[in-house]
Amino acid sequence: MRLTLFNDFSLGIVKDEVVYDITGVTDWDKNNVQSSLVTFMQIYPEIKDKINNFLTTAYTYTLSEVTLRPPVPNPTKIIAAPVNYSLHQDEMNEQFQNAEYTIENLGFFLKAPSSIIGPEETIKLPFPERRTDHEAELAFVVSKRAKDVLASEAHNYIFGYFGLMDIVVRGKEDRPWRKSFDTFTPIGPWIVTSDEVENPNELGVDLWVNEEKRQSANTKDLIYDCYKFFEEASSVMTLEPGDIVTTGTPDGVGPITKGDQVCLKIERVGEFKVYVDYKGKEK
Amino acid sequence: MRLTLFNDFSLGIVKDEVVYDITGVTDWDKNNVQSSLVTFMQIYPEIKDKINNFLTTAYTYTLSEVTLRPPVPNPTKIIAAPVNYSLHQDEMNEQFQNAEYTIENLGFFLKAPSSIIGPEETIKLPFPERRTDHEAELAFVVSKRAKDVLASEAHNYIFGYFGLMDIVVRGKEDRPWRKSFDTFTPIGPWIVTSDEVENPNELGVDLWVNEEKRQSANTKDLIYDCYKFFEEASSVMTLEPGDIVTTGTPDGVGPITKGDQVCLKIERVGEFKVYVDYKGKEK
Repeated sequence: MRLTLFNDFSLGIVKDEVVYDITGVTDWDKNNVQSSLVTFMQIYPEIKDKINNFLTTAYTYTLSEVTLRPPVPNPTKIIAAPVNYSLHQDEMNEQFQNAEYTIENLGFFLKAPSSIIGPEETIKLPFPERRTDHEAELAFVVSKRAKDVLASEAHNYIFGYFGLMDIVVRGKEDRPWRKSFDTFTPIGPWIVTSDEVENPNELGVDLWVNEEKRQSANTKDLIYDCYKFFEEASSVMTLEPGDIVTTGTPDGVGPITKGDQVCLKIERVGEFKVYVDYKGKEK
Repeated sequence: MRLTLFNDFSLGIVKDEVVYDITGVTDWDKNNVQSSLVTFMQIYPEIKDKINNFLTTAYTYTLSEVTLRPPVPNPTKIIAAPVNYSLHQDEMNEQFQNAEYTIENLGFFLKAPSSIIGPEETIKLPFPERRTDHEAELAFVVSKRAKDVLASEAHNYIFGYFGLMDIVVRGKEDRPWRKSFDTFTPIGPWIVTSDEVENPNELGVDLWVNEEKRQSANTKDLIYDCYKFFEEASSVMTLEPGDIVTTGTPDGVGPITKGDQVCLKIERVGEFKVYVDYKGKEK
């Protein structure tokens, strides 16, 4: 199932090019979307049939006429994997001459939830003079509270998958600073539930800047796959329902600048695009 | 005013050794405490007199008979200042031989909100064999949404102050990993509202491990004071009401181990104590 938040944070299902409004199928509070999403994930297994029945009478839109919102708007955490593809590890170590730049050494980092934007929104570059990069990633949303969960059990705690661009200013500051500027976490286009993704550890990840394909990889090359990274993160912290985990970027990261369009496509999940501008006045 | 969350996350005011239960003064939802706190902060200026009148008939407890809860239980972010006292900067640079270890270079980092505990709770050390340190800090809670707020205006966005222990495993991993283990952010004992603190940039900060005083400093020695750090953080990110900002630790950080009692005292704010144990089975 492809679950979308759209327009005024209504809840929808996307099938082909149609959005079915299923806001009425649950107690969905548009003023409290994250909390409504958490509740929805908890009851989803029980109401799956009810949703399917609801579709026959649901109000529908064509996909092109709705505004897609970030599918997980306000998690308590965004937990992110550093250097989780070996070719990206190579490019980072070459660039920064730091052989200790490995996921085993670094663990994870956190991004501010306030950096989230949705499809068709605009990344605002705070420092036109500093290199700011795109990083294409597969991300997922946690369905229920998790602590010390083994990789072999992690699939039971993942509600679904989506694409995430981990935007980053290069430099010496701590990663949370360099990666938490407002607009630095575009996510979309929707959540594809785990049952429909099947194997998240074998999905194509592609990113274009304008017409140029910059990143092209497959999650089968993750160093810590989705489940192993879940195990590592949950060995440190309690993961809360609605938390976002993002799995790290492959090689091919590169700078973006004002006027660019950045498109991320995840196999079996979908694609979305965002724009790039300077923050505030043009310099 | 000293605002406490106590027992079943009731809302209280502490005066001398008495806790006045003011849960009934607002629409306080014990199942949605963070959100209730955010609402309370918004209406606080208008209901301050009402609260004072309420105290004459409020149910009261002696302080020693209640369980104090973390005064800000579930923020969307914990934003933390690295190396924000010059003597601590010296000790860190000496220890890690890194002259670039400055707040100007590092910016800030983030801690996971799931690491929060309250007074009299227990820090659980995940790695008995790795050095894990106490860091005594003055922290505050953001009262309303803030972006690009100047230091000169920051006081208008700070609801109140409390003590925070930034517990950290030493090592090469990213700070969010080393500082986000469950139980690694004890906060307390309550929130003292800004009007009562007056000048947050001149407060004594003292920390004891058992009978030994390990840290003793004054926030007048902060490199970025409370307001300047607020400006820096809000230049990057939108600070949400209820977010925690913690200002960094002075010199004197040192290891804690199973059986220790750690006590943090902030002048004009109060003091609280936590215990230390190993996570899981004793090694």
